[in-house]
Amino acid sequence: MLKRYLPILAWLPHYNTRLCGADLLAGIIVTVMVIPQSLAYAILAGLPAVVGLYASILPLLAYTLFGTSRTLAVGPVAILALMTGAALAGVAPPGSAEYLEATMVLALLSGLMLAAMGMMKLGFFANFLSHPVISGFLTASGILIAASQAANLLGISGSGFTVMELTVSLVTDITNTHWPTLVIGTGCLAFLVLMRRRGQWLLTRLWLGPGLASLLAKAGPVFAVIVTTLVSWRFDLAASGVAVVGAIPKGLPPLTFPSVDLPLWRELLVPALLISVVGFVESVSMGQMLAAKRRQRISPNQELIGLGSANIAAAISAGMPVTGGLSRTVINFDAGAQTPAAGTFAALGIGLVTLAMTPLLYHLPIATLAATITVSILTLVDIKMIKQTWRYSRSDFAAMAVTIGLTLVEGVEAGIIAGVSLSVGLFLYRTSRPHSALVGRVPGTEHFRNVARHEVESASHVALLRIDESLYFANARYLEDTVYNLVASRPELEHVVLICSAVNLIDASALESLDAINARLKDSHVTLHLAEVKGPVMDRLNNSDFLDELTGRVFLSTFAAWSELRRRPTE
Amino acid sequence: MLKRYLPILAWLPHYNTRLCGADLLAGIIVTVMVIPQSLAYAILAGLPAVVGLYASILPLLAYTLFGTSRTLAVGPVAILALMTGAALAGVAPPGSAEYLEATMVLALLSGLMLAAMGMMKLGFFANFLSHPVISGFLTASGILIAASQAANLLGISGSGFTVMELTVSLVTDITNTHWPTLVIGTGCLAFLVLMRRRGQWLLTRLWLGPGLASLLAKAGPVFAVIVTTLVSWRFDLAASGVAVVGAIPKGLPPLTFPSVDLPLWRELLVPALLISVVGFVESVSMGQMLAAKRRQRISPNQELIGLGSANIAAAISAGMPVTGGLSRTVINFDAGAQTPAAGTFAALGIGLVTLAMTPLLYHLPIATLAATITVSILTLVDIKMIKQTWRYSRSDFAAMAVTIGLTLVEGVEAGIIAGVSLSVGLFLYRTSRPHSALVGRVPGTEHFRNVARHEVESASHVALLRIDESLYFANARYLEDTVYNLVASRPELEHVVLICSAVNLIDASALESLDAINARLKDSHVTLHLAEVKGPVMDRLNNSDFLDELTGRVFLSTFAAWSELRRRPTE
Repeated sequence: MLKRYLPILAWLPHYNTRLCGADLLAGIIVTVMVIPQSLAYAILAGLPAVVGLYASILPLLAYTLFGTSRTLAVGPVAILALMTGAALAGVAPPGSAEYLEATMVLALLSGLMLAAMGMMKLGFFANFLSHPVISGFLTASGILIAASQAANLLGISGSGFTVMELTVSLVTDITNTHWPTLVIGTGCLAFLVLMRRRGQWLLTRLWLGPGLASLLAKAGPVFAVIVTTLVSWRFDLAASGVAVVGAIPKGLPPLTFPSVDLPLWRELLVPALLISVVGFVESVSMGQMLAAKRRQRISPNQELIGLGSANIAAAISAGMPVTGGLSRTVINFDAGAQTPAAGTFAALGIGLVTLAMTPLLYHLPIATLAATITVSILTLVDIKMIKQTWRYSRSDFAAMAVTIGLTLVEGVEAGIIAGVSLSVGLFLYRTSRPHSALVGRVPGTEHFRNVARHEVESASHVALLRIDESLYFANARYLEDTVYNLVASRPELEHVVLICSAVNLIDASALESLDAINARLKDSHVTLHLAEVKGPVMDRLNNSDFLDELTGRVFLSTFAAWSELRRRPTE
Repeated sequence: MLKRYLPILAWLPHYNTRLCGADLLAGIIVTVMVIPQSLAYAILAGLPAVVGLYASILPLLAYTLFGTSRTLAVGPVAILALMTGAALAGVAPPGSAEYLEATMVLALLSGLMLAAMGMMKLGFFANFLSHPVISGFLTASGILIAASQAANLLGISGSGFTVMELTVSLVTDITNTHWPTLVIGTGCLAFLVLMRRRGQWLLTRLWLGPGLASLLAKAGPVFAVIVTTLVSWRFDLAASGVAVVGAIPKGLPPLTFPSVDLPLWRELLVPALLISVVGFVESVSMGQMLAAKRRQRISPNQELIGLGSANIAAAISAGMPVTGGLSRTVINFDAGAQTPAAGTFAALGIGLVTLAMTPLLYHLPIATLAATITVSILTLVDIKMIKQTWRYSRSDFAAMAVTIGLTLVEGVEAGIIAGVSLSVGLFLYRTSRPHSALVGRVPGTEHFRNVARHEVESASHVALLRIDESLYFANARYLEDTVYNLVASRPELEHVVLICSAVNLIDASALESLDAINARLKDSHVTLHLAEVKGPVMDRLNNSDFLDELTGRVFLSTFAAWSELRRRPTE
């Protein structure tokens, strides 16, 4: 029981120096690698850069205790930073004390929701985000993030959370482009793209081993940060107008509890829910993929608790919403992390940096961070997936297109809500017209096949109707229509047999429809029978009055119904 | 084509004096019967009584042109009156010019939505309101309406749209109970209950034929109106403080167009949608029931257009949202209406009353109308249905209970939205864990059955997994889990065959899961095969890369797969 809620107990007793060495190395590498992105995502969310560091300390410790993935690295991620900024845009002016407060409330609500969903085992809810909706949402968000960083690369002001807002703000200010900033930004961009695309190849040509070359290629952002900070410091670029990170308060994050401001909590409820679900989906699918590579398992419901505790930890340590991040997790995994202890070491490392080394970041140009974000979010834009979905299924593509369109035009919340609604709606629409077939007997056997496709025996006074879907509210009326049309088109009909071999469920609405069908067929002097009703469905029917009202019988098999009814024509 | 959009063309050419006579009689009876309820529902919605009459003229003519039910009578109904009042409560003070204006906007929006849904053939949307949700919603609304009328019966002020609001306002004012009003109100109530329960029996004892007795019993409200109006006029009860209908402007309804006030339109968008859907569901299910009695058919999509045009007509003639009403339709049907022309005659009749006879209604006590409403909405409260649903299905009952609870506590909009969301959520939850079974060969046959339930042949290196549901986003991950657990538990496994005989659909999310399963089984040196893939599903798969990646084969039948694979153990 304790082990279920504290997965740390599963691995800590077997912890040894070999595992510790591997985790320590991974922790150090992650510390160095994630500092640029932590700062960058805080700025993307409209927060002071240091909040990104704060959100990379306590949350990691919390996840070490409660998370089930051995290699997942939690922290601020691009998509949640964008969603945080969009959610808080109307609440308080960016940079104000209220804005910081609201960020903490958002993290707290999201943490509480995730933890509650985990305790209620509602992990399956994440399944309602279909692949096309997620991939469309990530693509559109990637475009929005890139557009929002363009202003930082150009050294102009520009903000917004829809394509329209961003375009307008960029176009009106483009004449103020700050050339030194642009040179740094595009220089970094070019360097980072080169490192990402050809870095490993270039470094192996420099006589480096493939492992080290791969790691150094991933360290591109670290090089960019160091080089541009040194240049910026040497030539005092801040004085000539290049935006830099500036003074960061030294010291560990303050421990506080977000204020209980009910109207604010209510306002942030929906954004917190969306952030929770999107964060969970992103994290858990990556966690499953990596666990699979090492033949481990993760538990989605316990993951909810792990991520929930990480967000609560972020909330009480002046952080921002966090989840398992793609790039930091890949770094952690490739650096050889063996247990969540690697996260603890990274947390200690980032804590040390926050405690002592923030003055070194003073001269770091914002444009460098913007270039880092831009390159890393390009992985979110998945044109190939869009093409594949178009080829494979038009209705999945429709859900994806609506998600992309609304995310770009109306913002992240509208996009994800519309995408989910449309996926669910399209699915219900498809199941609302269940497949059914009139069947007849394959001569000489006990098998029954579709009369339209096979040479089978049938009789004009008996209709054997096989229903190929569970019966529930969305298709109950369609069933009524099907049976009524059948009876109307065959005046000689005396018996209708519903073959329920594929019916796993008859809900209360469908039961009412069966009642109505039974009563109406009775008026038309047609008898209604059932056949091949599954055990659990039959148990349910026994709890209702339907079987007492049924004009006909319940046959165990279609063959039994056929043998009985074909012998009974009204002479 | 024209006939499809103007169903009147289907019956008008065959119209004759026999039909006309029947319709004329029905029209006169409906005119007399519906005046009390039309006034009552307008007051329930917080509107002047005359609006109820206005809404019973032009909308009937519009429905005559565009509706498909031969006997449906449209007009104001209790449930829409309650929803209208709730929707407008926050918009303007009841009785003000803005309130009237907003009512017309609500009717217009609802009309436009209904007509648009009809043209886009979205009638199936109504299926998403499951029976338990509808019945729970009607029960809770009935209780709310009865509570709101209690104040009118007591002669005190009292208002609200939740049980809490209503209780508080009744309790604080109960000491001001106006005794003459209470006498009239409870007197009418007792009379109406008596007429409804025993009226027909009493009247047949007075030597009346059963047909006339049934009609007169239904005319209870008309007697109550006449008698209490005469008493109120004779003793000038208005002077002693009994609330009466008062002066009603004489003349036909003014023709105007609601103002295009975009913020107001936006505010009323959701209420209008809910009113449209609830009205449509109520109307169409009644229309179908009555059409079935006379072996006629109605077209749900054309009904949307008919009801849409009726609401647009209400909007431009100073009316309120309308739909097919239960009591007025039953009166129309029982009075022998043969075609929608009966509605035209009723419209003319009510028009005449509005034109000339409104002064007669001056002394009609409001308490009489409150008694009329209270008695008629008691039919909405369906305790038997609640009990049946509890016995039949706990999850359907949960949806019903939430709908009832939220409607009572938070109001009609919250109730219906929560009920629908819960029905859909519970259904998706159920399909998110599809039934699947490992099968083996029934010896000597080509049949395969569940290994857990039958004596069948199987082989340790082959797993035949039959999936009993379509594969889509909500259950794709569950399928992955099932297969991974299977492979993890049987190390000797070499082949997994997914039998897709019950799979009608594989959506893009499920395709990704199949891709993932294929890749992961390949890593474990297990081959993935498919069998019995349906034609349309196969066509789709051919449009993707999945079949190129598939490590195994696609077999036409399970038997073919078994014959091939059982002969191929790795020696």
